[in-house]
Amino acid sequence: MTTDQLFKQIQRKQSFLCVGLDTDFNILPRLLMKHEYPVFEFNRQIIDATADYAIAYKLNLAFYEVLGTVGWVSLEMTVNYIRERFPDVFIIADAKRGDIGNTSKMYAKAFFERIDFDAITLSPYMGADSITPFLEYQNKWVILLALTSNPGADDFQQLVEKEKGIPLYESVIQKSEKWGSENNLMYVVGATRAELLIKIRKIIPNHFLLIPGVGAQGGSLSDVAQFGFNSQCGLIVNSSRAIIYADCTNDFAKVARAKAREVQEDMCKLLIRYQLL
Amino acid sequence: MTTDQLFKQIQRKQSFLCVGLDTDFNILPRLLMKHEYPVFEFNRQIIDATADYAIAYKLNLAFYEVLGTVGWVSLEMTVNYIRERFPDVFIIADAKRGDIGNTSKMYAKAFFERIDFDAITLSPYMGADSITPFLEYQNKWVILLALTSNPGADDFQQLVEKEKGIPLYESVIQKSEKWGSENNLMYVVGATRAELLIKIRKIIPNHFLLIPGVGAQGGSLSDVAQFGFNSQCGLIVNSSRAIIYADCTNDFAKVARAKAREVQEDMCKLLIRYQLL
Repeated sequence: MTTDQLFKQIQRKQSFLCVGLDTDFNILPRLLMKHEYPVFEFNRQIIDATADYAIAYKLNLAFYEVLGTVGWVSLEMTVNYIRERFPDVFIIADAKRGDIGNTSKMYAKAFFERIDFDAITLSPYMGADSITPFLEYQNKWVILLALTSNPGADDFQQLVEKEKGIPLYESVIQKSEKWGSENNLMYVVGATRAELLIKIRKIIPNHFLLIPGVGAQGGSLSDVAQFGFNSQCGLIVNSSRAIIYADCTNDFAKVARAKAREVQEDMCKLLIRYQLL
Repeated sequence: MTTDQLFKQIQRKQSFLCVGLDTDFNILPRLLMKHEYPVFEFNRQIIDATADYAIAYKLNLAFYEVLGTVGWVSLEMTVNYIRERFPDVFIIADAKRGDIGNTSKMYAKAFFERIDFDAITLSPYMGADSITPFLEYQNKWVILLALTSNPGADDFQQLVEKEKGIPLYESVIQKSEKWGSENNLMYVVGATRAELLIKIRKIIPNHFLLIPGVGAQGGSLSDVAQFGFNSQCGLIVNSSRAIIYADCTNDFAKVARAKAREVQEDMCKLLIRYQLL
C-alpha cells in the first residue's frame, strides 16, 4: 500500500484508527468455543464490526504464537480474511523482529510473502542490515521502534549520546530514515510521550507514525494529533484492549463497534480541526 | 536447566558448542523431500549426528516462520525430539523478541510453556518490563542481545552514552544484569568482537555468554576462549551454516558430524589449556 492510498482511506473513513488484535484465547466469550478456531472467529467478528471505523489492524504475534500451530493458522486466516473482505485496509504484523541480514530476509519472506502483511514492526538494536531486507519490498512498510509507551522505554531509549547530545531514540530516527523513505518507513512513538512528538516531527516531518498507548495505557488523542499531524495526517493510532475487550459477553462485537465509532468520531473532529478532511 | 547442569554437560562432552538449526527448506538435500516434514527430518538427522559434540541447539525462528504452520510444526517437533532423545541438551529459541509487559508474558508462555525451550534470545531496546516476565520462570534463561556480530551492530550498540562515557551495549549489560542473575541471564556477544570480551568480563565475570559469529562470520575460537572463559567455562559458541551446510548432498549428516567433531576437538584443547576439564 502506498502513502497516498493510506491517506485516501483516512479521508474516506475520517479516521486514523488501528484496531489491535491482541486476541487472548483465555478471555474469549464462551460462545466462540464451539468454533474450530475461536481466535479467528473473534477476530472476524471484531473486524466486521469495526472496519467502517478502522483503517488498519495490527496483529500482535505473541498472542498467536502462544497457541502454537493453531495460533499460526488463526493468524494466517485473519490476514487472509481482511485482505479478501476489506482490500484497502492496512495490515500490520506487530512482531518487533530484528536479526542479522540473512535472518531478516527470512522474516521478510515470512511476513510479506507467505503472509500478506502490509507492514511489520521491527526493533532497531541490531542496526541497518537487520532492517534493510524488509525495505526492498515494493509497497511494504517497516515500522521501526523509536520511543515506546512502556515504562522500560526509559532504560535505554532516552540515554543521551555523547557525540550529538541527543537521546538514543533520536539517533535511531536520524540514522534509520536514510535507510528508507517516507514511503516505506514509519516509526513507533508512544502516545504517553506526546510532547516529544514536537522534536520528532522536526526530524521526520513527513513520515507516518504508529502510536500505541492511547486508551488502556493513558495517552491523549488530542495531544497526539496536535503534536503529530502532518499534511497527510501522518498518524496511525492504535487501540487494542479498550476496543476489543470493551465487553466480554456475547455482545463483544457490538460494543467494540460502538467503541471504535466513539474513537473515530473524536478522530474525525481532530481531522476537521486541523483541516485534513 | 541450571548453570551447574550446563557446566557438567560441557565437561562431559568436552565441548561448549551450540549447533544453530537455521534450517533453510530451499537448500535441503532432495532425499528429504519424501518426508512430510523435511525440515524436521533434516534437523533430526543433524541432531543425531552431532549430539555427542554439541551441548546446545539453537533454533532460528525466522527459518521456521517463513514456512508458516508447517514451519511451526517442524519447530515443535524438533524441540520435542531433542527433549526426549537428549534430555540434558540446552535448547535455545533464537527469537530476538522484546515487547511491552503483557505481550512479553505471552511470548514467555509461547517459548517456555507451549514449547519447552530452555532459553530465548531477547532484544533490550524496550527495557526492563520487556525482559522480566521471562525471568520469572524457574530454570529458564534469557539471552539478551548485547554486542552482536553483524555490521549493523556499529549503528547503535557502540554509541557512547554521555553520562557514563560507555557504549550502549555496556549500559545494556550494566543495567540488565540487575534484572536477573548469573543463573537465568546470559548475553549475546559476537565472536567478531572478541577483544571487547575483556571489558565485558569485568562487568559480568560469571554470566554465560552466547557467542555467534565463529565460522561463517569469521570470528576466532581461541580469541573468544582467551578473553571470554570463566571458572565454569561461561561460553556457548554457536556455529550454524559451517556445520549444518558443510555438505549439501545426502551425506550431509555424516559431514556435519565430522565438522562438529572438529570444532569439539578444538574446544576440548582450549578447555584443557585453561584448566576447565
